[in-house]
Amino acid sequence: MTKRIFNFAAGPCTLPLSTLEKAAAEFVDYGGSGMSLFEMSHRGKQYDAVHNQALESLREVFGVPETFEILFLQGGATLQFGMVPMNLRAEGKTFEYVNTGAWAKKAISDAKKVGPTRVVWTDEANKFTRMPKAAELKAGADAAYLHITTNETIGGIEFGEFPDLGEVPLVADMSSDILSRPIPFARFALIYAGAQKNLGPAGNTVVMKPASDTPWVVRLLTGQGG
Amino acid sequence: MTKRIFNFAAGPCTLPLSTLEKAAAEFVDYGGSGMSLFEMSHRGKQYDAVHNQALESLREVFGVPETFEILFLQGGATLQFGMVPMNLRAEGKTFEYVNTGAWAKKAISDAKKVGPTRVVWTDEANKFTRMPKAAELKAGADAAYLHITTNETIGGIEFGEFPDLGEVPLVADMSSDILSRPIPFARFALIYAGAQKNLGPAGNTVVMKPASDTPWVVRLLTGQGG
Repeated sequence: MTKRIFNFAAGPCTLPLSTLEKAAAEFVDYGGSGMSLFEMSHRGKQYDAVHNQALESLREVFGVPETFEILFLQGGATLQFGMVPMNLRAEGKTFEYVNTGAWAKKAISDAKKVGPTRVVWTDEANKFTRMPKAAELKAGADAAYLHITTNETIGGIEFGEFPDLGEVPLVADMSSDILSRPIPFARFALIYAGAQKNLGPAGNTVVMKPASDTPWVVRLLTGQGG
Repeated sequence: MTKRIFNFAAGPCTLPLSTLEKAAAEFVDYGGSGMSLFEMSHRGKQYDAVHNQALESLREVFGVPETFEILFLQGGATLQFGMVPMNLRAEGKTFEYVNTGAWAKKAISDAKKVGPTRVVWTDEANKFTRMPKAAELKAGADAAYLHITTNETIGGIEFGEFPDLGEVPLVADMSSDILSRPIPFARFALIYAGAQKNLGPAGNTVVMKPASDTPWVVRLLTGQGG
C-alpha cells in the first residue's frame, strides 16, 4: 500500500479508506451474486437494498425527520439551480435569492432563465465577507421561495443562524457544509447538495423535502423514472 | 471466484470481467497516486487522461468522424428526450418524431412539453411490429429536426436503413443498439445513447454531434460546467 494522499482542495472529498477497500473487494462479485453491482438492474432486490441503506444511513446521521423524503439524483447541485425554480414557480410569484457569493450567483443566474427573480440581500459591495443574520432576511409577500447558500467555498463564509420564514419556503444549497452540524429541518422546505464534498463520490446529488409537498418533477429534467 | 452470472435482461449490461477486475484493482489506489479516482478532482490530469482515453476508444471503435464531438453527460437518454427539443427549438419550427414504440413515445411526450410536436410516421395501429423504410420518411419544410429511435427494446424492432434528410437534422436515440454496427454518420445531426446497455455502466450518457453545430446547452439542464 502506498502512502495515502488526502485531497483537501475544493471539489471531490477524501473517502474513508475502509469504504474504498470494501467497495474494491465487492466490485467484481457483489455479495456472492456472481455479478458486479454495475451489471445489475437498478430495479433489482440487491441494488434496492444498497439504495435503501444509503437513504437510512443519511437519515440517521443527519437527523432527517420522517416527514422529509430523500431523493438521490444526478446532475450535481448545479442542476438543482434550474430544477428549483422550474419546480417551485407559481403564477405571479417571484423567486427570491440571497446573494452571498460565487455559488449563489450561479443559482441566481439559472433562476432568471426560468422566471422573475429578485435578490433580497447582497454583500457584493464588500466582496462577500459576511453572511446575513437571520433578522436581516425577510421574504416578500409575492415570494415563491427564498434561496440561501449555507456555505460559500470561494468567499469562505458560512451561515450562522437560519431564518424562520413562516409560510414562505426556505430553500438551501448545502453542498459544501451538509452533515457538518445539526440543522433545524422544520424551517426548510427544500435542501439540496452535491455529494462530492461531504457525502460521497461525485455523481450523486441529494434533495430533501417534506414528503407532503408536491412531488419533485424530475422526469423531464434528470431522466429519473425511465 | 463464484460462477459468473450474465444478465441478459433489458437494462444494465454485462461488463467484461477483465474490465471489472482492473477497476477493482485500481479502486483504492489509482496508478500509484495514493488516492482513488473517486477522490480526485475532475479537473486534474489523472482524471482528464481517463476521460480522454474513453473518448478516443469510443471514437475508434464506433468510427466516429473527427468532425463529430462526443460528450459524456448525466441523466440517461431520458434527459435527452427533453434536452433535444430544448436545444434544437427554433421560432416557427416543429419537432418531428417517428413513433416506433415505447421509447419513441416517451421522447414525443417530453418534446410536447417544450414546443409544437408532430408525429410523421407511426405503426401504433399494428402494435409496432415494423420500422419505417427510409423512403417512407419525409421531413416537413418547417421541421426543426426529425427524431428516430433506432431500436425499440419493448417491441423488439430495429431500424434497417437510415433516411437522408438533407438539410433537416436527423436525431437518433441509439441507446439499445449503439456500437452494434457501423452507421453513416454523415446523415446524422445528433446521436445520443444511455451507456448502460452497450457502452458501460449506468450513469453515463453519450451525445455525439458535429462540432461545428451550436454548442449543446447543458448548463441549466445537467449541471455540467459547475
